[in-house]
Amino acid sequence: MVNTSIIGVGMIPVGEHWDTSLRQLAYDAVAQALEDANHPPVDALYVGNAYASTFNKQSQLGSLFADYLGLDGIEAYTVEAADASGGVALRTAHMAVASGAINTAIVLGIEKATDIVAGSRTRARSIGLDADYETPQGATVPAMAALLMRRYMHDYGVELTAFEGFSVNAHANGKRNPNAMYRNTLREGAFQKAPMVAEPVSLFDGAPDGDGAAALIITRADLAPDRASQPVQITGSSVATDKFMLQERDDMLWLNAVEKSVQSAFQQVNLSHDDLDLFEAHDAYTILTTLVLESAGFVERGQGWSLAKDGIITLDNQLPLSTFGGLKSRGNPAGASGIYQAVEATLQLRGQAGDNQVANARTAMIQSIGGLGSTVATHILQI
Amino acid sequence: MVNTSIIGVGMIPVGEHWDTSLRQLAYDAVAQALEDANHPPVDALYVGNAYASTFNKQSQLGSLFADYLGLDGIEAYTVEAADASGGVALRTAHMAVASGAINTAIVLGIEKATDIVAGSRTRARSIGLDADYETPQGATVPAMAALLMRRYMHDYGVELTAFEGFSVNAHANGKRNPNAMYRNTLREGAFQKAPMVAEPVSLFDGAPDGDGAAALIITRADLAPDRASQPVQITGSSVATDKFMLQERDDMLWLNAVEKSVQSAFQQVNLSHDDLDLFEAHDAYTILTTLVLESAGFVERGQGWSLAKDGIITLDNQLPLSTFGGLKSRGNPAGASGIYQAVEATLQLRGQAGDNQVANARTAMIQSIGGLGSTVATHILQI
Repeated sequence: MVNTSIIGVGMIPVGEHWDTSLRQLAYDAVAQALEDANHPPVDALYVGNAYASTFNKQSQLGSLFADYLGLDGIEAYTVEAADASGGVALRTAHMAVASGAINTAIVLGIEKATDIVAGSRTRARSIGLDADYETPQGATVPAMAALLMRRYMHDYGVELTAFEGFSVNAHANGKRNPNAMYRNTLREGAFQKAPMVAEPVSLFDGAPDGDGAAALIITRADLAPDRASQPVQITGSSVATDKFMLQERDDMLWLNAVEKSVQSAFQQVNLSHDDLDLFEAHDAYTILTTLVLESAGFVERGQGWSLAKDGIITLDNQLPLSTFGGLKSRGNPAGASGIYQAVEATLQLRGQAGDNQVANARTAMIQSIGGLGSTVATHILQI
Repeated sequence: MVNTSIIGVGMIPVGEHWDTSLRQLAYDAVAQALEDANHPPVDALYVGNAYASTFNKQSQLGSLFADYLGLDGIEAYTVEAADASGGVALRTAHMAVASGAINTAIVLGIEKATDIVAGSRTRARSIGLDADYETPQGATVPAMAALLMRRYMHDYGVELTAFEGFSVNAHANGKRNPNAMYRNTLREGAFQKAPMVAEPVSLFDGAPDGDGAAALIITRADLAPDRASQPVQITGSSVATDKFMLQERDDMLWLNAVEKSVQSAFQQVNLSHDDLDLFEAHDAYTILTTLVLESAGFVERGQGWSLAKDGIITLDNQLPLSTFGGLKSRGNPAGASGIYQAVEATLQLRGQAGDNQVANARTAMIQSIGGLGSTVATHILQI
């Protein structure tokens, strides 16, 4: 198995890019990444995207973007697992390079979501749930997150305020990130007073949809030193799945795919939780972050929220989380989010995270989730 | 690079499966393939699908199907490049196993298209064209094929009847295939009298949309003998792209991605055209088959149709084409078609093709195409 390295990163600010086409968003992120990697020859483009067929009536993005980038001819296609699309695209690129078939690949995460108005968008995004048994009942992703959150609060006897720390931390970090969608500070008490989206999930609890594009250049580790002074190694890579619907899981408050993919990634690199310097979690909902921290083994059951409450997740503490604002503040451009995580972790490991720098960051975990934990992609990056 | 083998195949008849759910179609094909491979432990499921987000309002198919198959936990996601989705999913599985990260993978091609009425379906399928510059002008895939066909007839001075042989051959082969959608013989003269879909593309010229699911089990070549008496090797694998839109190509009648991917596949295995015993081409339109045969180097420019006219493509001649009826007669279940090709080629190489058997078949080429040649996946299989 050939070792793989990230030698270039690029991203555009997450936001509402109404005046920019889907292909131009792709171009802007990839051009940055290619420049950052000192313009290596490229063999392939793997696109992580979840909803372009639905939001933009556009499929076959690989060929479309390769052409627009002036790279027509190269291998190119799309990889999809709902909001884990970015993570699984990274997995695909990693294996392509690891196989020896591809020397250098672009991985692009992209989503252009805000052309669709918010209500229709939530409905359109529910294609990631079960179209036979869930969506006909009116299920949407925030509604399912709300069910999970209420169950958690009931089972463990915690109040809504227990979850507040995740949002506060995300916004504290996102405030310093020029690429973040919502750079506002969450004031004391704002979380409790926020308007409800799907009770108890509020406007300040769930991550906002945004348009975004982020790109990586991945190459064989033996070629990396020619192109980048600080190549970042992909040392752990795992994708796992769970029972698709919450109702079919033996224990709704345990994310099997998180547990499995984290364990596998740790085993590949012979590391454990204490070795991580930061964790870019899929913080689409505070309940999801809570369950992730528990299922991944960072904390015992029923205590995930306490890592936020106790400040363990801030930039200067034990487990810096969502260091550039995460999905909550940087924004959640669905299929692109997993690649934003990889770009941000790469900047941390290179020591180029500016105001968001985690001191002496050497090892990072990133994790991308589809549905309510139906698909989970976990990667470990090291320098 | 680890060598890879196909050790199991399965498929359902292509047709109108109104009474069967998307996941059940998947199950039926995969269960056959697992049985055929003697139930090996499986690490991953790669799904080739183009239109489920659009036709079935369902994404995240990997996790959905893994769960329904009782394989929840394994790595699983979707790979897409319009109608080349099957081919690129095979490429992904091949590289995953070749990397050493995955020992055994299921590759599933699936499409459930006929729940959508034909007119709406043609429109819905146009997401594989350019949503900014083509579809707003009313472009559909058959309409673009018609433009190509008319241009070809004009440039080379050939009549519509020149293309007839491809459809006749497909139906002659499909007639003996119990999994084919249209098993009728095309009578003498029927092609010329067929009602037009998009002139000069007629009902007997373009391939019909169908529901279908086909599956492969792919494993490390060194593990294959434990599971299958006749493992089939994947010796050549290449994906290439072209300028996305016809109008941007220097030469509309030359498919660059076909040329590139075929050359690359041949180079990997150090073979050439004469070494092939059969070719499963993406015969969605006779003009596409014509251009493929020319761009792939089987025949000189302007002469692709002559291989059909001269009977070179029949089962007992030099280049057996569409040996189980191809997309035209077996049916074109979009994202599944590339995997049907792989299943059919595997049966040929094993000598299990029954009435459709090509004598002494040792080497097969299969090719899956997205759009009008925007994405092309070519594989060479050998026994």
